Amino acid sequence: MKTMGFAAIDADSPLEPFSFERREPRENDVVMEILYCGVCHSDLHWARNDWGWTTYPAVMGHEIVGRVIEVGSGVTRYKVGDHVAVGCMVDSCQHCDQCRKGEEQLCREGNTGTYGGTDRVTGEPTKGGYTKHLVVREEFALRVPDGLDLAKAAPLLCAGITTYSPLRTWNVGPGSRVGVIGLGGLGHMAVKLASAMGAHVTVLSRTPDKRADALELGADALLISTDEAAMASAASSFDLIVDTVPVRHDLDPYLPLLDVDGTLVIVGQIGPMGAMNSVPLLLGRRRVAGSPIGGIRQTQEMLDFCAKKGVVPDVEMIRMDEINEAYERMEHSDVRYRFVIDMASLEAA
Amino acid sequence: MKTMGFAAIDADSPLEPFSFERREPRENDVVMEILYCGVCHSDLHWARNDWGWTTYPAVMGHEIVGRVIEVGSGVTRYKVGDHVAVGCMVDSCQHCDQCRKGEEQLCREGNTGTYGGTDRVTGEPTKGGYTKHLVVREEFALRVPDGLDLAKAAPLLCAGITTYSPLRTWNVGPGSRVGVIGLGGLGHMAVKLASAMGAHVTVLSRTPDKRADALELGADALLISTDEAAMASAASSFDLIVDTVPVRHDLDPYLPLLDVDGTLVIVGQIGPMGAMNSVPLLLGRRRVAGSPIGGIRQTQEMLDFCAKKGVVPDVEMIRMDEINEAYERMEHSDVRYRFVIDMASLEAA
Repeated sequence: MKTMGFAAIDADSPLEPFSFERREPRENDVVMEILYCGVCHSDLHWARNDWGWTTYPAVMGHEIVGRVIEVGSGVTRYKVGDHVAVGCMVDSCQHCDQCRKGEEQLCREGNTGTYGGTDRVTGEPTKGGYTKHLVVREEFALRVPDGLDLAKAAPLLCAGITTYSPLRTWNVGPGSRVGVIGLGGLGHMAVKLASAMGAHVTVLSRTPDKRADALELGADALLISTDEAAMASAASSFDLIVDTVPVRHDLDPYLPLLDVDGTLVIVGQIGPMGAMNSVPLLLGRRRVAGSPIGGIRQTQEMLDFCAKKGVVPDVEMIRMDEINEAYERMEHSDVRYRFVIDMASLEAA
Repeated sequence: MKTMGFAAIDADSPLEPFSFERREPRENDVVMEILYCGVCHSDLHWARNDWGWTTYPAVMGHEIVGRVIEVGSGVTRYKVGDHVAVGCMVDSCQHCDQCRKGEEQLCREGNTGTYGGTDRVTGEPTKGGYTKHLVVREEFALRVPDGLDLAKAAPLLCAGITTYSPLRTWNVGPGSRVGVIGLGGLGHMAVKLASAMGAHVTVLSRTPDKRADALELGADALLISTDEAAMASAASSFDLIVDTVPVRHDLDPYLPLLDVDGTLVIVGQIGPMGAMNSVPLLLGRRRVAGSPIGGIRQTQEMLDFCAKKGVVPDVEMIRMDEINEAYERMEHSDVRYRFVIDMASLEAA
């Protein structure tokens, strides 16, 4: 089926309007009209080929909310008119141990990315949500619960689940002492979600100027990581630290903050880490981990949790033709805290 | 009470005979005649002031097995003639949350090291097991189970518990897939203990020349870490990797070997680690941790386990006056796999 969107034609040019054919819906597919699509930092990396394996034209976007406009003959979960969402993956093998556990993100064959992946049936490159329509198998469509703001729900599909998943893996709940490093798209969601789970949440920041923002988002405290006395006083006082910093950085300042058996979980930086000394790890049986997005079941759980608790990201709405400006601002961390594209703007572009 | 042993007088001189006063036994103390003392790499670091805070004269030794020759009036656990053992710590606060949990090694006030520590009553520097006698509060003396070879039991008090503890923390048992990096004092114990717990054990080595040794110790397989094809085939195949390498090294080659939620636990290197890329951590929710010795209760459990399973280290017996030569050989990894000093040799020295 014919659709239109915005694409990167090469690594150096701004995104521009782009029309292309989506695959014809298969019997287990739903066809979505996309209403909103969040803008993730990964979109920018992919557009600019920062990881070295982008294929062009590249259509980004994996924080997708829309409405079902057509269903395949075998679809049982959704009907025309339902509000549905799609995150970072659109398929997986469905038969390995991880898929059977509902951890499709950890599929042994590799999950199929919403963009930059390869369709498991046709072999064609997948294209993301900066478009008018998406065709996706029903197992990878999430239900948007009633009461969740459709526009604001979009970033939950990546920024939301990426921070929700480690909070669940490490059993955050009332009484948990959670630290959050970095207050961007992921960090601000980590604060809101951990707070909604009942945790005592501390934002770690290099400077005190984020105090008001942190508290407004639901944090209980701000810890200035450049204040040596404050850092020393905070030793052994966290059960979990969610590290959302998206660039290489040293772990050494943060590890002593973990209590015995505490974990620092990396969700931001994808690549080399900076200095890590084993002394605090050994002396306190402390841990460092990474965590990806969650599985489909957990993503649905997260959406339901957010609807119930009234948790949504703070977003800045943009038009599709403002995407290049948004990328520039994102590079300077100039966004509070996530851009969302209103896809109704696409036809005007 | 008067005792004698071997001490380092400064960072540069060989160890030499040294007589000194042990504290008079307090009511909760036992007095041990030391029969055997293992030689740990930490002893060498301490003697040479590698960590910068050694005080001299320094008496090393924290793998201590002996016989009770006197008990204080309040001692209830031991009587004269009992075989007892002392490991890396001789005291702790006994009232913090960690001590109450039996994790005295993680005492909030810091445990008192068997050597290089400070006696919590008198304030005098503690002195280790390269001596004829030790005075220790009964709570920090372990019972050596009948049937355990007294000489070979000594290294269990550090090398044994340091590898046993992480195997228990990460629930190793039948069916667990355990890797061991490094085949020295700690590594060879990790192999024996994990194997005795029913795990499938693989030794990771840079060269194939350790195959026979690894299999003889109980390993099921050897994985050559310089063989890229073998390493690629072994991706995602370990639940736990015990990293006993005692020097700075990169973690990058090993992280992809862990299965989802698998852990690489550092027990060897105490200091800066080498390169660590977050990609395998994020993609597989993999983890890196450190682990110290275990608590008193777990150390006793380990001794009982070793007696029941017939697990003892491979040792080379030396005389006290061979300690300087042993240190030299240890620096070149020329020991299979732990030196133990026969303290009966002390009087002849």
